[in-house]
This record gives sequence, structure tokens and C-alpha cells, in this order.
Amino acid sequence: HRMDARSLWLCRWYYSSTCQWVLSLTIFLILALAFVETPSSLASTSDVRYRLAPWEPPCGLTEGLEALCLLVFTADVSVKGYLVGWAQFRKNPWLLAYLVVLLVSLVDWIVSLSLVCQEPLRVRRLLRPFFLLQNSSMMKKTLKCIRWSLSEMASVGLLLAVHLCLFTMFGMLLFTGEKDDGPDRERLTYFRNLPEALTSLLVLLTTANNPDVMIPAYSKNRAYAIFFIAFTLIGSLFLMNLLTAIIYNQFRGYLMKSLQTSLLRRRLGTRAAYKVLSSLTPQGVGVKPQDVLQVLQKVQLDSDHKEAIMEKLHSRDALLSADEFQKLFDTFDKRVTKEHPPRPEYQSPFLRSAQFLFGHRYFDYLGNLMALGNLVTICVFLVLDADIRPEDRDDFVLGILNCVFILYYLLEMLLKVFALGLLGYLASPSNVFDGLLTIVLLVLEISTLAAYHFPHPGWKPEMLGLLSLWDMTRLANMLIVFRFLRIIPSMKLMAVVASTILDLIKNMRAFGGILLVVYYVFAIIGISLFRGVVVLPANSSLAPDNGSAPCGSYEQLEYWANNFDDFAAALVTLWNVMVVNNWQVFLDAFQRFVGPWSKIYFVLWWLVSSVVWVNLFLALILENFLHKWDRRGHLEPLAGDSGASSQ
Amino acid sequence: HRMDARSLWLCRWYYSSTCQWVLSLTIFLILALAFVETPSSLASTSDVRYRLAPWEPPCGLTEGLEALCLLVFTADVSVKGYLVGWAQFRKNPWLLAYLVVLLVSLVDWIVSLSLVCQEPLRVRRLLRPFFLLQNSSMMKKTLKCIRWSLSEMASVGLLLAVHLCLFTMFGMLLFTGEKDDGPDRERLTYFRNLPEALTSLLVLLTTANNPDVMIPAYSKNRAYAIFFIAFTLIGSLFLMNLLTAIIYNQFRGYLMKSLQTSLLRRRLGTRAAYKVLSSLTPQGVGVKPQDVLQVLQKVQLDSDHKEAIMEKLHSRDALLSADEFQKLFDTFDKRVTKEHPPRPEYQSPFLRSAQFLFGHRYFDYLGNLMALGNLVTICVFLVLDADIRPEDRDDFVLGILNCVFILYYLLEMLLKVFALGLLGYLASPSNVFDGLLTIVLLVLEISTLAAYHFPHPGWKPEMLGLLSLWDMTRLANMLIVFRFLRIIPSMKLMAVVASTILDLIKNMRAFGGILLVVYYVFAIIGISLFRGVVVLPANSSLAPDNGSAPCGSYEQLEYWANNFDDFAAALVTLWNVMVVNNWQVFLDAFQRFVGPWSKIYFVLWWLVSSVVWVNLFLALILENFLHKWDRRGHLEPLAGDSGASSQ
Repeated sequence: HRMDARSLWLCRWYYSSTCQWVLSLTIFLILALAFVETPSSLASTSDVRYRLAPWEPPCGLTEGLEALCLLVFTADVSVKGYLVGWAQFRKNPWLLAYLVVLLVSLVDWIVSLSLVCQEPLRVRRLLRPFFLLQNSSMMKKTLKCIRWSLSEMASVGLLLAVHLCLFTMFGMLLFTGEKDDGPDRERLTYFRNLPEALTSLLVLLTTANNPDVMIPAYSKNRAYAIFFIAFTLIGSLFLMNLLTAIIYNQFRGYLMKSLQTSLLRRRLGTRAAYKVLSSLTPQGVGVKPQDVLQVLQKVQLDSDHKEAIMEKLHSRDALLSADEFQKLFDTFDKRVTKEHPPRPEYQSPFLRSAQFLFGHRYFDYLGNLMALGNLVTICVFLVLDADIRPEDRDDFVLGILNCVFILYYLLEMLLKVFALGLLGYLASPSNVFDGLLTIVLLVLEISTLAAYHFPHPGWKPEMLGLLSLWDMTRLANMLIVFRFLRIIPSMKLMAVVASTILDLIKNMRAFGGILLVVYYVFAIIGISLFRGVVVLPANSSLAPDNGSAPCGSYEQLEYWANNFDDFAAALVTLWNVMVVNNWQVFLDAFQRFVGPWSKIYFVLWWLVSSVVWVNLFLALILENFLHKWDRRGHLEPLAGDSGASSQ
Repeated sequence: HRMDARSLWLCRWYYSSTCQWVLSLTIFLILALAFVETPSSLASTSDVRYRLAPWEPPCGLTEGLEALCLLVFTADVSVKGYLVGWAQFRKNPWLLAYLVVLLVSLVDWIVSLSLVCQEPLRVRRLLRPFFLLQNSSMMKKTLKCIRWSLSEMASVGLLLAVHLCLFTMFGMLLFTGEKDDGPDRERLTYFRNLPEALTSLLVLLTTANNPDVMIPAYSKNRAYAIFFIAFTLIGSLFLMNLLTAIIYNQFRGYLMKSLQTSLLRRRLGTRAAYKVLSSLTPQGVGVKPQDVLQVLQKVQLDSDHKEAIMEKLHSRDALLSADEFQKLFDTFDKRVTKEHPPRPEYQSPFLRSAQFLFGHRYFDYLGNLMALGNLVTICVFLVLDADIRPEDRDDFVLGILNCVFILYYLLEMLLKVFALGLLGYLASPSNVFDGLLTIVLLVLEISTLAAYHFPHPGWKPEMLGLLSLWDMTRLANMLIVFRFLRIIPSMKLMAVVASTILDLIKNMRAFGGILLVVYYVFAIIGISLFRGVVVLPANSSLAPDNGSAPCGSYEQLEYWANNFDDFAAALVTLWNVMVVNNWQVFLDAFQRFVGPWSKIYFVLWWLVSSVVWVNLFLALILENFLHKWDRRGHLEPLAGDSGASSQ
């Protein structure tokens, strides 16, 4: 790492929040291009029956944006290369790969432009997720962790494969029989030949065809059920959970380790800072609080923590020893509890008692009760109106009730502002959420009243403007349902779970990023393989049940919108396969549309997404919750081992 | 606990293996009665289309058996009551419940006999699983553990319920639209009214209707997919996994704790034995090895461990101190490695080299290779014969090949017996498995040859005896596939996993017992609620696709065999609901057959089996594997804390 003044300035500039923000924006932009590029997703539906030709960007538009992004990445890699120096650069596989990916992208871009955007394959689209990967150190770490556990996963995979093969052969030997017999129908439906039998049992491993696959044989003789139950029990309950155990075992302590590493790095940093600052004092054995204050003022830090540290520094005069200096920065591990802004002070005793009344938490509870009451009224009207068609409904009573409730919400907000002061009201995120929704509701209600006047019985005005009265009411009701979420912090159990989930989301960015990368790559591959293969049969009408397609087929289930004709549709299709239910329909349909090799793509996606990633996610959730529940027991030893784990 | 000589004799007699075996047999018998009793399962199928009237036992037969079992239980409870004494008996809820259950069963039995077995409801059938529960201390412990975690599970359940309700209301407000619109079709199909919308989303929580539920709306506008994806993401990925985390957190250390408790009990026992034995010596400070030997000879113990201890005792003369005595019995924690019986010694150098050759592990590998080869040939013939109907197949080549392979297996067995000696051969369970299957194969082959003579091209003899030639070949092939499992111990990774699974099964008996109890109770309730409600519509033919039933309904999918008309059918139906896939078909069908209240039964079963039990199972697997992987780290401190954890 270069250490001269210019490099340091460059380094500081490179890691400044503006610069990093530009880089993140560029990554987002280049990834988002996939929605706009040639199989454009800018149509309201991907259903082959209803879709219109989407707007296609003219050649050069997305390419121009892409060139801009690639320029930013070139600048990024050159700055990084300059900072670490060529010797380091050569040894770092990530940086080398970055360079290669950039070069390939540029070449592909030039080829693309020279062919006036008519090239058959865009290699660079596949490579784009790499920019996301290389920019996050957490994602690189997670990838490394996944790589470590691959060998153990492979061993369970082998076991699963052996299990599958043996049961397939057993099944094929079992289900042969005379004509019109149960076993024979089983053979003709699910065990016709080896690949089909293998597919049937692979799908059974995910339980996606569970009762169906056993029906023909089981209807004839109940003993055949044992074969299928044994298969599911061993495969789905034992071996799949074994995989979960292996992945969890690998990721146990992963969070702990990464916490410890970041703690260690920070300690090393503070130690280095101490060394530098102590060299300023004549004796060289301590740090003057003033020096620290000076440095702190120049440094970008979380303002709450900064203030806490500065307060501590102001209160002492003597030199700081190394231990004290270290302890000073341990404040970063603690959560600083913000002080509530002071409540406004009123003179009149009446106002004071009103303030006490409306600032009390029982007033909050009353608000929750009113929200619940509003929810119940909406619910009652939904039940009452269930069998009436939307255009025949009478919204008079609900309109009046919503008016009343919204007025109450406004009153509640104003009274709270009066009791707590504006700053005090805005200090709590739950109040902000509440107030924002109340204002939106108020605006909606006022505009409804302005457009359609006051409600009266048989209130059925014509549609005016953008939304009909019914749509306005629906929107208001949805917002009221959404506003009901304010009760979460009031219920202790739910608050704990909700805060854990919020913590989890922070920890999960690396996993989410990897999921994004995997989705992106598979979607692009899927588009290049299966684009345009789903076509409506020529003789079919748009009638929903034309009866010509067999039950349970892609056509009968009307899965027409689940295709790979554009990026957004591909994402939803991949999601549906990841959720695993009914994925045999996709296997079967694409086998008919494209060929049996399409199964490889879907099975691979199932392995990556449903088997590996979902288990990874479960492991992460387990790790996070157990860590949270154990925190009291573990935080102390972690904070205590000052240098024991340093290398 | 009574301590006089007669009580001790009774106690020893009661806990003798014969007595406990009789008790277990009685429990098994009374539970197995459900298969024979009035909705008898003794028919080959439960399909309402094909089933014949099953054999019903005459009134008094099962009742007689039941009376016998109840008598044994009465004896059991009176012995137990006598041994613990009335004061203890009154305080023990399990024993009191045992008495009550017995009394209720007896009264119900008398009522049943006096009504000549025509009573509408048998309460005692519901109570039978209690006999299994109270007989196992592990199951009682597990139940207690489940009871502890119920409150936390309830909190997540509440969260799930709130999630479900909010999304249901949101969905009902979202999916209303003009006629023939996507949202309107969505409303008419899945969000018709509040109960139906709730059911749709509850099923989506289990992902069992995943792409279908979003199809009508998603076909119209792709933005609607966000609603369903968000619901699945929050409900199925976050909250369900949260439940897993909570259950796992509760059961973490469960195994450890139960191990520690049993260790503690054993230590207390050895300590007490030491006290008693040391009082025999004049000084009272040690134990004579001869005394221990005398006691050991009278005690029933695992013979391997007993021999190991006796060997150690023989080698010393001095008195044993308390610590040495304790250490002596720690051998029980260690696995005694059995010594292989000595190989037979041959005189001739030729025989010796042959022995070396055939006793070598490479000879094992050759055997595995041959088994694999046999499997491959069967596989090839399955692929070749896939499109030929069974009666047209020519089994000549496969017949010859199987003959050759079976001869090789025989040769391998004989050579191994020659190399290792008969005892050495039988010492390894893998060889026993191998040899047994080889002998069965040989018998099968010889009887085939005897009945159908030697194979020749176009070999198509008439059926003779019980099985046709084709069935004989199939059976032989199945046995060969089964025999292939012998490779498991040869592959290290698979051996580890397989041995862990075997260990798991031992630890899992308590969980399996609880599952059995739950299945039993739900099956009996299901039979009394839904027996005979599945009837074939009068105008329907037996043709598989009569086209009158809508796609995806119980009738079209031909789930006729999945009903509650007898105990075995009820078990399979419950299994299919537990696996969760397509359970909405059952919900819908029984709603039509019986009424909407039937949903409560199925949702309750889903909660108990799929949500709680499957998560419990996952927790147990995680616990077991992590324990196994950590064993080296944990066994030492466990064995070291000699009395720290004693109360």
C-alpha cells in the first residue's frame, strides 16, 4: 500500500462517502439495465396471451449508459491498482478478475455496437454481477465460506444421488404389471423409462408431486404407499435436513468470527492511532486529550458516538494511557441511547394536566384500540360486501366511518404534538410512521370529498379524475391496514422478534447480494436459452377452460406469464421454481417446448437456490437468533480478550 | 420407595427384561388392535372405487384381546403403586392419570360389550396411546421440553396470525376490479370472501398453491406478483424459519442435559454401590476386587463391558478406593472394540497366499465393483426394455448374466469364509448382510432354474407355481439392488453419515413415539369424524378421465384412496397432509363432503405435524450432528466434572 501524501489524499478521497456512493449507483445502474435492454420488461404483463409489444430502447441508448458505467469502473480499477501497487495487484485474484471482466465487457460492447445491437449473444450481461461481488468484502467472505463447505455438501449430494438411483431402479422393477393394473398405470404415468422415473422421484424429493405420484399404485394396493413414504422419509426428512445441519455447522460462528475480526481490526487501528498521537507528547508515553479532540473534529464519524467520546475527553486533563485510550473507543460497541428532547412547558394548570393526559402511554393504547376498531369495521364491510359486485356496493356508511376515524387520527397527532412538542413527536420513528400515514390519509380524504362531495345514502357518483370513489376508498383502507403496523412496538414479544428481524436484514446484505448475483446470472442464462419458446398454440382460444390441455399441464394451469421472454418475467419464473411447489409443471413444459436438456437448467437452479441458498438462509437465521439470545453470555468474553486473538 | 426384601425382589422381577418385554408387547398389541377393529384395514386397498368389504372381526374377538391387555396394565399399575407406596402415588400425576385411563377404558369396554359392539363412539381407542407415553421416561421428558417452548412458539404463532390477517385484508382490498379483469378473476377464484381468502393465503404460507394463486392477477399485471412474493418471503422464509430457530434454541443442549443426567445417575449408583461394598471390608475404606467380581457375576450387563471390567479386576489385588471404583465403571462410556476372531491357519504355502489374497481389502473392492457391474447391467436392460410391454420382453441375456453374477457372489462368499474362517466372516455385519442376501438369491435362482429350466433365446415359459419367470427375475433384481447397499461402509463419507443416522435413530425413539401418539390420536379422531363421507358420485363411471370434475379437484386427481374409512387409510391420508404438498385439495374436498368446520381438523393437524413436529425433528438432527462433530471437544469436560453438577 502506497503511503505518500498524494496517495493518502487519493485514498481518503476514494473512500469518501460521495465516491463510494457514485460507485454503488453505477453498480445499481448497470444491473438495472437488464430491465430495459432488448427483451425489455417495460410491458404491463408477460403473459403471451395478453402482452403488447413493449417499448424497445433504440440502439445506443442502453449502450451509452453502459459505456458510462464501464468508464467509472475503469477509473475505479485504476485508482485501486495505483493505491495497492502492481506487486500487490498481481497477487490479488479479485483485482485481476476485475480487470479481465472489464476488458471482456469492453470488447463485447464494441462488437455489439459494430453489429448495430443485433448480436445473438451478450456475454457482458452475464459478467455484470461481478461488479457487485467485487465491491463488497462481506460477500467475498461469504463466498469463501460457501466454498469451504462445498466438499461436505458434495458428500451429502452423493448420498442423495445414490438414494435417488437405488429407489429409481427399485421402483422401475416394482411397477411393472399386467395391463390395466395399478402398478401398470403407475409405470405408464410416472415410471415410463429411466429418465422419467428419475424425474418423478427427484420431484418427490422436493415433495412437489407428493400424493399424485403414489395414487395409481396406491389405489390398487395400499402396500405400495410404503415405497413412497420410505423414499420421502429418507430423502426429504433425513438427507435434506442433514444438508441443513452441515451448512449450519459451517456457518456457526461465522457471524462471531466476522465480529471478532472487525473488533480486532478496530483495536489495531486505535493502537496505531495511539502510537502516532503519543509520539507528539514529549515523554511519548501518553496522549493529550486535546490532541484527540483535534483529530476527532476532522474525522467523519457517527455523530452520536463522537459526541459521547468528546464529552468524556472534555471531563479529564491528564494524559491518556494506552488502556484508557482503548477503552475510550470501546464506546463504539455500545448503543448510545438518545435523550428525548424536553417536553414543552405550559403555564396554565389546565394545559399541564392535558399534557400529562395526552403524553401518557394509555393515550397510545387508545390510539391502537381505535386503529383496531377501524380495521374491524373494514373487515366487517369486506364480509358484508363479499358477494356484491364492486359497482353495486353502497359505500355510504364506510365512507362516514372512515371520515370519523381519519379525523380522530388527525386529532391524535395534533394532541401528541401538543403534549410532546414537535421535536419530541418526531424523535420516535413509530410516531413519524404514524404521522406520515395520517397526513396521506387526510390528503386522500380531502381530495375524495372535494371530488365526490359528502357521502349520502346511495352515493354512486360517476368517476372523476384519476381514481373512482371506490378506488379512493380502497386506497384509504389499505393505508389504514398498513397503519395498523404501529401496534408492533407496543407488544413486547412482537417487538423483540421485529427488532431481531431488522438486525437480521442488516447482517443479511451479503447473503441477499449473493442471491441477487445468482438470480441475475440464471435469469440471463434462462433468457438466452428459452426466450420466445413459450408460444400460444395456434388453434387455442383465449377462453380460460378450453379443456383441450390435460389437467395439471402448463397450458391448463395458464402459466403463460411464467416464461423467460424478458428479465422481470424470468425473475418471477425463477422465484416460482425456487419455491419448488409445482415445479414439475415447468420441467414438463420446457421439456416439451425445448427439449429434455432443459431439465438440467431447472435442476441446477433448484440445487443452487432451493437446496443451497434456502439452507444458507436458515443457517443465518439460526445463527442470528441464537447469537442474540446468547448475547449476554458472550459479549463479555469478547470485549475482554484484549489481544489474545491477535495473530 | 419400599426397601424391604420382598419389595426388592418384586422390583427386580418387575424390571427384569422378560417382564418389560411382556409390557412392551402388550402396548404394541393394544395399539395394533386399531388395524383390526371395526373399520378394519384388512382390505388390499382403501380406494372407494375398487375396495371390497373387508373381513370384520366378530364381536368379542378384539374385545377379548383388549381385556387381556387391560389386565396386564392393571397388574402393572398395581405393582408400580405397591412399589412406590400410596403417599408417592398420590403426588405422581402420571401414575394417577394411568389409573384414571385404565378405569375409563374398563368402563368403556363394559359399555361396548353390553351394546354388542354397536356403540357409536369408542372413547378408549383415543386413550390407548397413553399406555405408550407413560411407559417411556424419555417421552415424558420430551413432552415436558415441548411444553416449555409452547409459550415462545405461541408468540411466533401470533405473529404469523397477524401477518396472515393483514395480508388477507390487503389482498381483499387489492383484488377487486371491473368484470373480466385480472384482479376480478383473482377475486372470484381465490379471494371470494374472507374465509376463502384466509384459506388461500394460509395454503400459500405452506407454498402448496404457489404459482397458481398468483396466476390470474399476475397474468394481467406483473406488479401483482410483488404482493405474493412479499407474503411468501415474510411468512414462509422469515417467520417459519424463526419458529425453527426458537424450537432449536429450546432443544439445544437437550441431548447434552439428558446425557449428563444419566451420567449423574450412574455415578450416584456406583457411589452407593461403593458404600455398600466398602462396608463389607473390616476397615470400611475400600472395596475388595473379589467382592466386585462376585456382584458382577450376578448382575445383568452388556457382556462386552462386563468382560472388560472383569479383566481389569483380575489384574489387581489391592483394595479399590472410591476414585478407582468410579473409574472402573467409566468403561461403560467407552465403546469396546471387539477383537476379530483369529484367522484359520493353513499349512500349505499355496493356501496361505490364497488366504492373503482373498482376505485383502482389494478383494472387497472387487466385490463392490462386481455389484456395481450387476447394477449397471440391470439398468441397461431397464432402459432397453422401457418401451416393451412386460409380457413381450426377452429375458434370456439378463437371465444368463444374473446366473453368472450370482455364482460369483457365491464364490466370493465361500472364498471369504475360507480366508477369514466362519466366525471371522460372521463378525462383520456387512458380511452377514451380504451372505444372507447371497443365499436368498441362490435359493431364488435355483428354484427359477428348477421351475423354468435353463434360459435359452426366446425363453417364454408359461407361469408355474406362485411366481412367473418375470416376477422371479424382478425379485432377484430387486435383491441385487438392495445388496448394493454393501458399498456404504467402503465409502468413508457415506459411512460417517450412515453411522450418524443410525445413532440418530437410537436417540430418536422418544420423538418417534410422540409422532406415533399424535398420528394415532388424529387418525382415531379423523375416523370418527370423517368415516364414510367419501362416496363415489352416483353417475360417475370408473373411467379415469371422465372430464366432469374440474382440474385439481379431489375427484379429478383420483384421491379416492385418501380417506378416513379405516385406520391404515387414515394414517396415509395424514402423512399426505403432513407432507403439505397439495393439501388444499383435501381442505377443499372435505369442506364439500362434510362442511367448512373440517378445515379446523386439517389446519390443526398441519400445525401439530408439519409446523411443530417437523421443526422438532430438524432441531433433533441439528443437535445430534453438531453434538457428534463436537464430541472430541465436549466429552472431556463432561467426564471430568465428577461431582460438580450433583445437587
